[in-house]
Amino acid sequence: MRKVYLDNYAASPLLPEVREAMLPFLGERYGNPSSLHSWGDAAREAVEEARARVAELIGASPEEIIFTSNGTEANNLAIKGIAAGSRRKGKHIVVSAVEHFSVLHAARSLEKQGFELDLAPVDENGRIDLGELESLLREDTVLVSVMLANGEVGTVQPVAEAARLAAERDIPFHTDAVAAAAHLPIDVRELGVQALSLSSDMLYGPQGAGALWVKKGLRLIPLLDGGVQEGGRRGGTENVPGIVGMGKAAELAREGMAERSRRLRDMRDALISELPRRVEHVYLTGHPEERLPWNASFVVEFIEGEGMLLFLDQQGIAVSSGSACTSRALKGSHVLAAMGVPPERAQGSILFSFGPQNTPEDVEYVLEVFPPIVERLRQMSPLYAKFLKERG
Amino acid sequence: MRKVYLDNYAASPLLPEVREAMLPFLGERYGNPSSLHSWGDAAREAVEEARARVAELIGASPEEIIFTSNGTEANNLAIKGIAAGSRRKGKHIVVSAVEHFSVLHAARSLEKQGFELDLAPVDENGRIDLGELESLLREDTVLVSVMLANGEVGTVQPVAEAARLAAERDIPFHTDAVAAAAHLPIDVRELGVQALSLSSDMLYGPQGAGALWVKKGLRLIPLLDGGVQEGGRRGGTENVPGIVGMGKAAELAREGMAERSRRLRDMRDALISELPRRVEHVYLTGHPEERLPWNASFVVEFIEGEGMLLFLDQQGIAVSSGSACTSRALKGSHVLAAMGVPPERAQGSILFSFGPQNTPEDVEYVLEVFPPIVERLRQMSPLYAKFLKERG
Repeated sequence: MRKVYLDNYAASPLLPEVREAMLPFLGERYGNPSSLHSWGDAAREAVEEARARVAELIGASPEEIIFTSNGTEANNLAIKGIAAGSRRKGKHIVVSAVEHFSVLHAARSLEKQGFELDLAPVDENGRIDLGELESLLREDTVLVSVMLANGEVGTVQPVAEAARLAAERDIPFHTDAVAAAAHLPIDVRELGVQALSLSSDMLYGPQGAGALWVKKGLRLIPLLDGGVQEGGRRGGTENVPGIVGMGKAAELAREGMAERSRRLRDMRDALISELPRRVEHVYLTGHPEERLPWNASFVVEFIEGEGMLLFLDQQGIAVSSGSACTSRALKGSHVLAAMGVPPERAQGSILFSFGPQNTPEDVEYVLEVFPPIVERLRQMSPLYAKFLKERG
Repeated sequence: MRKVYLDNYAASPLLPEVREAMLPFLGERYGNPSSLHSWGDAAREAVEEARARVAELIGASPEEIIFTSNGTEANNLAIKGIAAGSRRKGKHIVVSAVEHFSVLHAARSLEKQGFELDLAPVDENGRIDLGELESLLREDTVLVSVMLANGEVGTVQPVAEAARLAAERDIPFHTDAVAAAAHLPIDVRELGVQALSLSSDMLYGPQGAGALWVKKGLRLIPLLDGGVQEGGRRGGTENVPGIVGMGKAAELAREGMAERSRRLRDMRDALISELPRRVEHVYLTGHPEERLPWNASFVVEFIEGEGMLLFLDQQGIAVSSGSACTSRALKGSHVLAAMGVPPERAQGSILFSFGPQNTPEDVEYVLEVFPPIVERLRQMSPLYAKFLKERG
């Protein structure tokens, strides 16, 4: 059976060059970057080279990069660390309603500690409304967080414009760039943000590494206290092979972004234009143009997402029904809900996320296999029976 | 030049079996454990197998294991998570004065949030005094943390006895087993503790993985909010290769502990007995008997530790002057200070930490190379000149 992996938002195969870069650090190049001898020097140089590469990807200075264990830790460090660092100035924060749970739940945990939280609403395409965002900003707002792009529905946010609204009021602005960084060119100075989160695995690097960029001068309280690693902002022995892999992935992302994104965009567009022609009652979710090159997200009416996942898996195709972080919770997507998609439609959500290893033949296979699966599932669907009856 | 790596407390070469176990997960076995398809199933099974192996090492149930990114995160999660979870019961915590900075500084950060902190003192061998510990326990004490063994000076603590004192008062007890777990047999039920921290790299597994064991029923507030990974207690995509490596390392530790510890103990004892014979004014630090098999820590009088490190490095020998987490801070050791070692002696601290790759020839080489280095450094030492003059 053909195997088609289209769940790159959940996990991706390591790029071969990344794997090659990592292997020595799982072998002869062991060492602790904090050690004062040549093994330590070698480990430290490798980490600092990776830091420079990650900084270069986003137009930042290396000393502003804090390596973390993943995107979730970077987002938690940003939200909790910046809020805790500006507690004296105020206790109000604003995050968009479609943030990843690592931002949203971190903000909720601040709420329990006495912060006030407002969620910036989004339109039916998942874009924040700048006017609505502006109206939420207060004298005592100490943090705004709006993601660069949403991984579940692909929508790219007007972050530069949003950050300008915050900057006019001297409010620190964080953006979660985890889903976007491999495909949207980023310059933190041009964006005008003060903090930005990255994840290694979304750059087609290894799991176990992430990074938070924090602009020099912004006060940040660490989440992990301990040694003086990462400039005292994140204690704990560094994951040297993971960081080396992330550095290589960042370098490859920067060098090959245009070509890689074009390839993924072509496959995505083929699926987006063809799938609704082959299957009735299938609708694209997220913004039709302002969307991530790798993201093809749909709602398939009268069907539950989980059923599609299982039937597709039996045909060798891996997809998801949204964020991997929420898939096992089996709850409705907060992103689709914020976009005004009714729960009964939202349960039919499905996400095809492309990666560098995919080929146009993968799209062909999906277009061949998917329609009969939908037909079969609809035959078992009470909702579909009701719809047919009502249509007459 | 011969290369002798004796800084295994800072970093260790990966065991070859661990590397072999990890490699598929940096290749064809990619996947996100949260995904609802066969790639996800494979990743999830690998993580759960690792969880079972880690649990087995310490006599715990797999569902009580929370994977983290390292020992520092495990310690932070324990200290902050348990304290935050029992905030309503009280705001007093007790940790030993010789804890790793990830425990000590986490406790200090709780102090800033309104908790009261007491440090349990230690004797000249670095052992806590049970009577003193008991006298610090209060009605409103919500957490006690005493490490199983100290990595800097090797001293093993009377944790079972200390935990009993806390248990009599229904106070949760955490122990940092990072430095001990590869060499001291651990059964969490026998120890009578409620939480225990582990680090992959100290099991000769990869950097980038750690674990916190928390007894079922103990309330714990997560540090990293996000998805439902790790039973909702630690959000974020798992470092699958790192976790797989940690699981393999835990299995090897359990199976080979007696033999491995004997080998390391023999080398350690050779160095401990011979070094003071070959170099004047060298003293063992830490407990003479109750100490980790891999730890040979000394104070070399009239010399600064950093000088020894650099000269030894030039001879191909890697050691440290204590914890890698503090080495770049170049501050005096809080552990030696708590043991009553005066600052001028403490600055001559040196730690030889053995690992499975070491051989008796490594000890021979150190015994050959080290005495002339000490002699040379002492010739440059004003303190030594003063000592000689005073001795007459």
